[in-house]
Amino acid sequence: MMLAVNQTHRPDLTSWVASANEPQTDFPIQNLPLGVFQRPGDDHSPRVGVAIGDQIVDMAACLDAGLFDGPALVAAEACAAPTLNHLMSTDQATQSALREQLSNLLRQDDQRSVGNQPLVARFLVPMTEATLLLPVAVGDYSDFYASLEHATNVGSMFRPDNPLLPNYKYVPIGYHGRASSIVASGTSIQRPHGQTRDQPAMEPTYGPCKALDYEVEVGIFVGAGNMLGEPVPIATATEHIFGLCLLNDWSARDIQSWEYQPLGPFLAKSFATTLSPWVVTLEALAPFRGPVAQRPLGDPRPLDYLTSPADQQLGAIDLTLEVFLASHRMREAGQPSLRLSRSNFKKLYWTMAQMLTHHTSNGCNIRPGDLLGSGTVSGAAKDERGCLLELTWRGAEPLTLPDGELRRFLEDGDEIVMHGYCERPGTRRIGFGECRGIIRGGRSVGYNC
Amino acid sequence: MMLAVNQTHRPDLTSWVASANEPQTDFPIQNLPLGVFQRPGDDHSPRVGVAIGDQIVDMAACLDAGLFDGPALVAAEACAAPTLNHLMSTDQATQSALREQLSNLLRQDDQRSVGNQPLVARFLVPMTEATLLLPVAVGDYSDFYASLEHATNVGSMFRPDNPLLPNYKYVPIGYHGRASSIVASGTSIQRPHGQTRDQPAMEPTYGPCKALDYEVEVGIFVGAGNMLGEPVPIATATEHIFGLCLLNDWSARDIQSWEYQPLGPFLAKSFATTLSPWVVTLEALAPFRGPVAQRPLGDPRPLDYLTSPADQQLGAIDLTLEVFLASHRMREAGQPSLRLSRSNFKKLYWTMAQMLTHHTSNGCNIRPGDLLGSGTVSGAAKDERGCLLELTWRGAEPLTLPDGELRRFLEDGDEIVMHGYCERPGTRRIGFGECRGIIRGGRSVGYNC
Repeated sequence: MMLAVNQTHRPDLTSWVASANEPQTDFPIQNLPLGVFQRPGDDHSPRVGVAIGDQIVDMAACLDAGLFDGPALVAAEACAAPTLNHLMSTDQATQSALREQLSNLLRQDDQRSVGNQPLVARFLVPMTEATLLLPVAVGDYSDFYASLEHATNVGSMFRPDNPLLPNYKYVPIGYHGRASSIVASGTSIQRPHGQTRDQPAMEPTYGPCKALDYEVEVGIFVGAGNMLGEPVPIATATEHIFGLCLLNDWSARDIQSWEYQPLGPFLAKSFATTLSPWVVTLEALAPFRGPVAQRPLGDPRPLDYLTSPADQQLGAIDLTLEVFLASHRMREAGQPSLRLSRSNFKKLYWTMAQMLTHHTSNGCNIRPGDLLGSGTVSGAAKDERGCLLELTWRGAEPLTLPDGELRRFLEDGDEIVMHGYCERPGTRRIGFGECRGIIRGGRSVGYNC
Repeated sequence: MMLAVNQTHRPDLTSWVASANEPQTDFPIQNLPLGVFQRPGDDHSPRVGVAIGDQIVDMAACLDAGLFDGPALVAAEACAAPTLNHLMSTDQATQSALREQLSNLLRQDDQRSVGNQPLVARFLVPMTEATLLLPVAVGDYSDFYASLEHATNVGSMFRPDNPLLPNYKYVPIGYHGRASSIVASGTSIQRPHGQTRDQPAMEPTYGPCKALDYEVEVGIFVGAGNMLGEPVPIATATEHIFGLCLLNDWSARDIQSWEYQPLGPFLAKSFATTLSPWVVTLEALAPFRGPVAQRPLGDPRPLDYLTSPADQQLGAIDLTLEVFLASHRMREAGQPSLRLSRSNFKKLYWTMAQMLTHHTSNGCNIRPGDLLGSGTVSGAAKDERGCLLELTWRGAEPLTLPDGELRRFLEDGDEIVMHGYCERPGTRRIGFGECRGIIRGGRSVGYNC
């Protein structure tokens, strides 16, 4: 199998890039995630890079220097572009060859790297000097709802008489999202305006959102696509997954509750979605794949088209997700941010393969660079709830911040930072970097409201 | 106002392209819709063209021959591309200048056209020899629900106790659609498979859709975009509309009814959406714009952000939509197709400007080439119902075809053809061409169901 654990995952590998060997780095040599950055200096054209420690490898520069050959060269040539879409359209064997050659070039002890080391060192850009951009031009973005706990919690608030609908345990529920408003980590998020109705007896009004929320999700990038009319079988679904990132599905709860019937969330979600800049490849995550948790007793088996032994065996990824909040006042006072939740991607009710296969099961085509959101990753415990809606139970149980401020929903100036990492005894930590955004109030004058 | 009636609309204008002067043509010189085509012969690269009678003007060839100048030259240069996206990103004054020069080049009586006529004639491609492609690379596709009659009919079938939800008369309801599976007219449509549940007491199953339907809609192409966070005010919304096409929102009703709660339609719609090939510009439609129909007595006024006097005065477009069905047996027997409905775009509850402004009212950005669907255009009369779900009342009242076949929903081999046209005494007919698709059964072997 292409994405099995191999020598690039060996925990004893170290890099001549010293920062990659620090225990808490997100980007050891075992990770090698891909992104798009702008270099300091005059040339600000977007370039594909690979994270190693606190440095970025400039892929086009390495390519020009002739550092790749064989299938890896094909992949490296696909990196000479302003997005990862070309690379994502290559097959996993090609991508894997690139990973292997990059690993060799960056290894401390590799004979082949010794000669090239001074050359590669010239093509490193310090992360602190680079601007990280959106890694992909997303064609279509679809968002799922794969956490049973999240669906149950939200359902019991919006439909107390009917929290979990009868389709949930059969259908990996999802909906189409908005691709145009996907932004890179660090982009400030303007508080959306929208139509809301406070009470059923009142007229709705248009104004600033009063229940702004985040949702911690995993973003799944499609690699190889399929032809329209040809579903992807569950057995080969992961061959269509390039890699993962962190995703903040900003949500306007008051807009959502008024607009969402009967066609689902629309403007409650489409004002912004933030992605972390580094795409961690599925191959880098191979050591952290494991068996899917048993479904609760009495739950139905997934239908045959959503079942494969390999997916049951390796479909869960042990990926920890953490969400931190720092208010404007906390940042001004130099206080550390508050961790709001820690949950795990492996506990979802549906696997990535099931989501992808279901998405194509009607014949729908997916294309390289398409994005699937996992849905909010919540767990059973209160500190595993992946959004404020759940954490404050729709505002009924406000959070108290370390400086005494109360939070029902997000206030202007609040910053949300998400982290994700895979860690297990005997492996190096594979991190996702961060997914960051600050809420900005106000709006330019002149708009008719 | 940029898109007012001007000399290019004069009903007495005729073209030296004789077929453009026939009374029943969709493409008189007053229309000049844009599309993308492949020429016969060796060079199959997609090219922008303009329809005139039964011919296509090859825009890149005209550009190369130096036939444009001034602002029209800017627009013509934007046509030297495989899609209309570049042209759509120019402003309406630029686009209008191109229309004026094209009109002059094709006019029978114009001094300027006399010298150029032999040259332009060389750049005409007969429609019968060309292949018409998708005119636009659609970034995001959003689908609305703007017919009160359609929403009421569908609601009363899916939610008999609650047909029209309380938000409908305040919110131009819409949802995100799938861009990847948008196909050009003439593409055959494979019957989707999906998960359905026949009875609440039964387990769901996965298999071919048993309730396949079409929906007749108008597609609205976005021209100039907006910046993320900056809503488009209603007063200037039409400045962001490039033009219209016909849209068939193929729908799998059995998949839809099982999957759609709580996040809306997903796989019931994403297997295919067909567009007519010619984009009729908003300017060509200027003579057919008129006042919006009064809302039923007692209905609320739209909120301020959705109200403008100009939109009330000119927001309705008198565009007739017709849907025809021909079964495989009917076509084999040489029988004419059956008209299923005739409805009118002007009767919608929400205008294009209201849909577009609402879409951006939360700060969501729209981009040139984005597509808005109007939602099924139905009317109050039975023969104005724009889909089989309504026409056969979810199969309860099957249609009888001329050869005696019964139809509840679409069968394999059924062909749906949509036509659209604007007609009014004292004007030339502005047609949309056709939006065509045949249902194809079966599926390639090897898929796990």
